[in-house]
Amino acid sequence: MRDLLDLPASLIPVGEAVAAALEGVRRVFDDQLASDLPPVSALVAHVERYRGKMLRPTLVLLSGLATHPRAAAAGDDAAALAALLTGEHLTVGAVCEMVHMATLVHDDVLDGADVRRRGDTVNRLHGNEAAVILGDYLIAAAYHLCSTLEGGEAALRIGRASMVVCAGELLQLHHRDDFSLDEATYLEIVERKTAELIAASAELGAAASGATPAARAAMAEFGRRLGVAFQIQDDLLDLTGLESVVGKPVGKDAEKGKTTLPVIHHLARADPAQRGRTLLLLEAAASGDAGATPRLRRALDGTDSLGHARRAAERHVASAVGSIASLPDTPAKGLLLAMAEAVVDRRF
Amino acid sequence: MRDLLDLPASLIPVGEAVAAALEGVRRVFDDQLASDLPPVSALVAHVERYRGKMLRPTLVLLSGLATHPRAAAAGDDAAALAALLTGEHLTVGAVCEMVHMATLVHDDVLDGADVRRRGDTVNRLHGNEAAVILGDYLIAAAYHLCSTLEGGEAALRIGRASMVVCAGELLQLHHRDDFSLDEATYLEIVERKTAELIAASAELGAAASGATPAARAAMAEFGRRLGVAFQIQDDLLDLTGLESVVGKPVGKDAEKGKTTLPVIHHLARADPAQRGRTLLLLEAAASGDAGATPRLRRALDGTDSLGHARRAAERHVASAVGSIASLPDTPAKGLLLAMAEAVVDRRF
Repeated sequence: MRDLLDLPASLIPVGEAVAAALEGVRRVFDDQLASDLPPVSALVAHVERYRGKMLRPTLVLLSGLATHPRAAAAGDDAAALAALLTGEHLTVGAVCEMVHMATLVHDDVLDGADVRRRGDTVNRLHGNEAAVILGDYLIAAAYHLCSTLEGGEAALRIGRASMVVCAGELLQLHHRDDFSLDEATYLEIVERKTAELIAASAELGAAASGATPAARAAMAEFGRRLGVAFQIQDDLLDLTGLESVVGKPVGKDAEKGKTTLPVIHHLARADPAQRGRTLLLLEAAASGDAGATPRLRRALDGTDSLGHARRAAERHVASAVGSIASLPDTPAKGLLLAMAEAVVDRRF
Repeated sequence: MRDLLDLPASLIPVGEAVAAALEGVRRVFDDQLASDLPPVSALVAHVERYRGKMLRPTLVLLSGLATHPRAAAAGDDAAALAALLTGEHLTVGAVCEMVHMATLVHDDVLDGADVRRRGDTVNRLHGNEAAVILGDYLIAAAYHLCSTLEGGEAALRIGRASMVVCAGELLQLHHRDDFSLDEATYLEIVERKTAELIAASAELGAAASGATPAARAAMAEFGRRLGVAFQIQDDLLDLTGLESVVGKPVGKDAEKGKTTLPVIHHLARADPAQRGRTLLLLEAAASGDAGATPRLRRALDGTDSLGHARRAAERHVASAVGSIASLPDTPAKGLLLAMAEAVVDRRF
């Protein structure tokens, strides 16, 4: 939403409505994490600095607008659009962001990461123990907040999504340093560890608007495809991005033994000699040789594997776009489509 | 419940009803954690071996029986007692145990522990990363399971309890190596990190029975006092227990810089020379000197600090017993009282 100025005029009111609601999401987020204990407050304040793109809350809000039974009537009137968003949308948005933050905090512990969004990580500043417990605190706060919603549907969905995310991470860990990983297993990992929570965000945004089951399912599928595209783009940025632009160190996937889509494609296509050289490069990267990443990138280019991954991400974006074709053409849908395109264009 | 043979005859039927229901809790627990992914199932199978005393589910069930509006009518008839326990009691019991397991798995990572309940820890066998994610999986599974219950009250209570537990752990971490910790702050940590979930277990058992607000509050207070007594006894066992009986290494609190009740009392009472010697002993223990624990124990005995802690635990047990004085005298209440006494008598 930071690029409101780049939007076509017809999308500016909905962009403004979402930007205003995101402020509400931030308030709910901060209020829920507040603690009477100063050591807890200090850690929470650090996490609040982590908040970046707010992808998941933005998706909750846009999905809520795009599937709302009164979406067409609101047209591009900013006040009418803002009136469609309720406290439930804001709460669900804060819950999804909080669950995501918890996974970031724990991921940074697992990866031994020092930098996140241009700042020191919690584990770097306060140690692994504080970071593990803080992640647990965030998860607990997310569930507690979710349980304040009527009906219990959101709590069930978020609980299930969190189980799926963890199962995906365990599957990924199981395949660490597995250079024979195939594309189907890679996609299974990504659908679980990244796409599931994004799908749940989109679905719950629609549910909070009282959308039809068909519209909810369409939004869930949109989120799932968007999530897969997002992860593939993340994999590409780890290989081709600039640390100063991405905001965190690059070349980490190979260092951590994560076999990503470009590498899978390359190892399947390269001739035996090249395959052998690439495996040596991957081992060099895993043992912390910073010079391995540019050489790996050149090898991957030789089999057009970066292009393959880029096209795969674009296919998932196209599939996301297709999944909401039946929704009425509203400004909110226009922003969802712009968001989908931005996923593969982004450089951070 | 393993000591059914030691119970007076009048308590055997209720003991049997609880033992049978605990089997049901185990089934709910295992079903909820089942995964289609073999690497996840393998880790879960390991966690299922961790299950020990099942203190929290036992408390859910006994609380459910002792506060049930038809408790008096059921008397000591095993079938009538069993009929009072519903699926909700079993689910709540499984949820409380799962949240507790998650904290154990994460605690073992934080403590770098190798042994738990006479077996290798998850982190020892599968690494810290698997253990952190597995703990997250357990928390997510607990919340998801909790959200299947009607009304949403249990999910809210469990969410809040989990936040309080994490805040207590962060407070404890903040006071690591703080030898000036006072008894009030120690109790605040213990009430949060240990007693809160036990209080919630007792409270939710009563809620599942449709107990009166007064009975729920009485059970919550019973659980809270029991939890504090339990933690103080744990602190004592870490100083005085035998590793072969306790089932995990002893002397770990001093090694981890946790200032426990006997040490707080001792440092407040010892003369300056003794205080200096004890601080040196605590530092030796923190740097891994295994010989420090017996010397520390002798120092603590010199100021009757082990006795002080034992009496404090007994006072909390007496307070727990007093808090349920108004409940009708039933076999379930008899077992709750026996359970409270057992907390300070236990050697593991």
